[in-house]
Amino acid sequence: MQLKVKLLGLHAGRPVAIMHPKTAQMLDVHVDERIEVKKIKDNSKSIIAVVDLAPRLINQEEIVVSSEVAETLKIKKGEIVDASIAHRPESIYLIHRKLDCERLKKDEIKDIITDIVKNALTEAEIAYFISSVYNCGMTMQEVAWLIESIVETGQKLNLKKKIIADKHSIGGVAGNRTTPIVVPICAAAGLTIPKTSSRAITSAAGTADVIETIAKVDFSVRELERIIKKTNACLIWGGSLGLAPADDKIIQVERLLKLDPKPQLLASIMAKKIAVGATHVLIDIPCGKTAKVTKKEAIKLKKNFLDLSRYFKIKLECVLTNGSQPIGNGIGPVLEMRDVLAVLKQSPSRPVDLEKKSLFLSARLLELAGKAGKGQGIKLARQILQSGNAFEKFKEIIYAQKGNFNNLKLAEFCCSIKAKKRCAIKEIDNKKINALARRAGCPADEEAGLYLHKHVNDVAEKGDIILEIYAESRDKLKEAIAFYKNTNPILFG
Amino acid sequence: MQLKVKLLGLHAGRPVAIMHPKTAQMLDVHVDERIEVKKIKDNSKSIIAVVDLAPRLINQEEIVVSSEVAETLKIKKGEIVDASIAHRPESIYLIHRKLDCERLKKDEIKDIITDIVKNALTEAEIAYFISSVYNCGMTMQEVAWLIESIVETGQKLNLKKKIIADKHSIGGVAGNRTTPIVVPICAAAGLTIPKTSSRAITSAAGTADVIETIAKVDFSVRELERIIKKTNACLIWGGSLGLAPADDKIIQVERLLKLDPKPQLLASIMAKKIAVGATHVLIDIPCGKTAKVTKKEAIKLKKNFLDLSRYFKIKLECVLTNGSQPIGNGIGPVLEMRDVLAVLKQSPSRPVDLEKKSLFLSARLLELAGKAGKGQGIKLARQILQSGNAFEKFKEIIYAQKGNFNNLKLAEFCCSIKAKKRCAIKEIDNKKINALARRAGCPADEEAGLYLHKHVNDVAEKGDIILEIYAESRDKLKEAIAFYKNTNPILFG
Repeated sequence: MQLKVKLLGLHAGRPVAIMHPKTAQMLDVHVDERIEVKKIKDNSKSIIAVVDLAPRLINQEEIVVSSEVAETLKIKKGEIVDASIAHRPESIYLIHRKLDCERLKKDEIKDIITDIVKNALTEAEIAYFISSVYNCGMTMQEVAWLIESIVETGQKLNLKKKIIADKHSIGGVAGNRTTPIVVPICAAAGLTIPKTSSRAITSAAGTADVIETIAKVDFSVRELERIIKKTNACLIWGGSLGLAPADDKIIQVERLLKLDPKPQLLASIMAKKIAVGATHVLIDIPCGKTAKVTKKEAIKLKKNFLDLSRYFKIKLECVLTNGSQPIGNGIGPVLEMRDVLAVLKQSPSRPVDLEKKSLFLSARLLELAGKAGKGQGIKLARQILQSGNAFEKFKEIIYAQKGNFNNLKLAEFCCSIKAKKRCAIKEIDNKKINALARRAGCPADEEAGLYLHKHVNDVAEKGDIILEIYAESRDKLKEAIAFYKNTNPILFG
Repeated sequence: MQLKVKLLGLHAGRPVAIMHPKTAQMLDVHVDERIEVKKIKDNSKSIIAVVDLAPRLINQEEIVVSSEVAETLKIKKGEIVDASIAHRPESIYLIHRKLDCERLKKDEIKDIITDIVKNALTEAEIAYFISSVYNCGMTMQEVAWLIESIVETGQKLNLKKKIIADKHSIGGVAGNRTTPIVVPICAAAGLTIPKTSSRAITSAAGTADVIETIAKVDFSVRELERIIKKTNACLIWGGSLGLAPADDKIIQVERLLKLDPKPQLLASIMAKKIAVGATHVLIDIPCGKTAKVTKKEAIKLKKNFLDLSRYFKIKLECVLTNGSQPIGNGIGPVLEMRDVLAVLKQSPSRPVDLEKKSLFLSARLLELAGKAGKGQGIKLARQILQSGNAFEKFKEIIYAQKGNFNNLKLAEFCCSIKAKKRCAIKEIDNKKINALARRAGCPADEEAGLYLHKHVNDVAEKGDIILEIYAESRDKLKEAIAFYKNTNPILFG
């Protein structure tokens, strides 16, 4: 049925089409069912949208589409589109079979992923898929097919380079902002390293949030290719690129319950590396108490990554690092960027733990990608950092991303937590520290967060500052202090 | 924040609130997040709604709410409501724990069910809950708490009778429309039997769809109490009563994948029986090839029902019946109603299998509820049916439900499937027969469906009609014939 598009600038978080009840009746669709909206001009372009009804907003010949539909199809106001009933996708039967722990074949996984990207599956149906993977797991062959499907249904970078390096951390450690240090070191050494990062999901900041305090992180694939051509590298947000749209959608549904089933974690990371064309990849797996994984799990994960890298013919190395406490002093977008700059500028007050880990990771990647001989990576990395070459490269990247170094002030309201007596720091809980920074306003309030004056095994004299909390309002500061007192993220010996 | 309501008659299938982006920013909510909408006049009334944004539809002081919000809160156009951010409910952590197969406590199950009713959980979150129950199961104690929670969060019938009878079939057999025969027989014998039924989910017709061909099935609790007072019984749709709103919502999400985990099946049935105040309940569990359950599963299910009936102090009997083929000749709303009327009117062409099963079920319920001595039920049931008392009672109920017996014509387009040679009917597949009737247009096209001229073990001579297919359009008839040829729902010996 041909209908005239009315745009109301409606953002619904998912593709929605509002129709007149009579029009819906003629199409034989009901509220909350789905229609396929097709461009008349370009018949290959279509999207599936959820139906809402409204008798008084439009007439029978009109249709309101949400911005999610309009942007995907590039529909203009007044344009004529074709609307037809979208039948229940076959992939729901496949999801049902996976819920019963059956193994799926390559085509079947591809069908599910294609339907996710086409919006043919509802969020509830995707939740069933995630549950099935959470409950039944997947074989490494299934994971490999999942990765292929995610890559095939997304955009790809085409950098036309023989060696493309990349790094990834599975996360879980507060602070730990090594990427903005490792990337310029490796790029200064001549490696091409197109680093895409995520925003915070449950943590105080993601790398994209941190970079965004001083530069743009939101680029199209074409713009990105220009930035990399100019600087050998980038530090951008992966979300806007559409490299792995299925994965983005799955993460959105996983987030509801903070689920992260292992097959999905593996697929999510590998798919993004393959989509940028990476040939040499370093994976950081922090492990330990209050980290994301235990050492035992980390060893298994490492084996999985290596298996997958052989399947995809990628040179990959996994390093298991100490994730038992936060790394760096700042927690929160601006506070972490200040740490990064202190290391890059080699300021005397720089956090040495962050520098040490960044040098270690840079060294591993430089050796893996053949820029340094065996055992020589650390020397090269340190030389690039100490000479100022890393900072120069960082500035190049930031300027290419339309950034500057002007605005790095901290939030107005601050409270210092001090030692009541002489004591040693016994433990700092990553999860509680992240939660504390979020209470203070992170990541939305980018100037909010924490500054850790002490790390584990440090000794504090009576009156020494252990921790500062920064917040943009008195209320948030108060809430954060109350949370600190309730949860004790820092244990004293 | 106080906002003025604008109504656009928007039906979204879930509670939705459309706000101006600036208003959302002030509330610190984003698209697809949730707000709590409260009535100013009656502060106890609130509902949680999903946020859509639209800059051009409303100004910053206004809010559009969907009919799902307006009806629940009884909001009028121009009314002022209070909108505030709805925080992530604690019950998602409980669902996560259930996904890890932990046992939940009474309060924890109540929290999940309460949040489902309040709309605080998204459909995806409910899908996670259903998956967890599908995967991990529940102890009988958990099921009992689930039932209590579903009942406590819904409406209850209060009939003030000592004995209240009820029956239920777990379904899965095509046709099998015993309820409209059993209910008038038992009511004519003096039993109070407030029967609520469902509409078809995956079958060709539910009892509510069948009754709706001649009467209204959609009543409020107050109206229902009046109908029962007058006739001792009813034959209505349970959906509009709000007896078990949590269950209605759960079924809506289960339906996406046609899931029906056993704990949920038990809870769904028992909760509705308890909500109508049933004291004596008969459960029909059809089993066999192509039925919903095997004999082995039926025996387990029977034990579960008996355990639960003891917990809730209800007299309950389970009968395992032969569900290996369709029962009755008609499949589809009108076609099944014609079968029911043929039995009630004792017409010579009535389907004997349907009559026999209905008499058997009536006998069991009459004996269970003390209206007949042991072994005497069948005689009483047959006498009520043959004397015309059952049909009189049925007419009373139908008239009380504003019905009449005028319109029972069949769909215009018909095709007969005939025997190509002399043969015996070996098997009739319930699932395929249901699917075939749905292809022909059931249940939406109430005059469409199938008429089975033969049952299993019948012999057909060459040229005998095996099956008629009725449809409202030539296209649907063609599609149904193609489906028949592809799937072979009837096997010949």
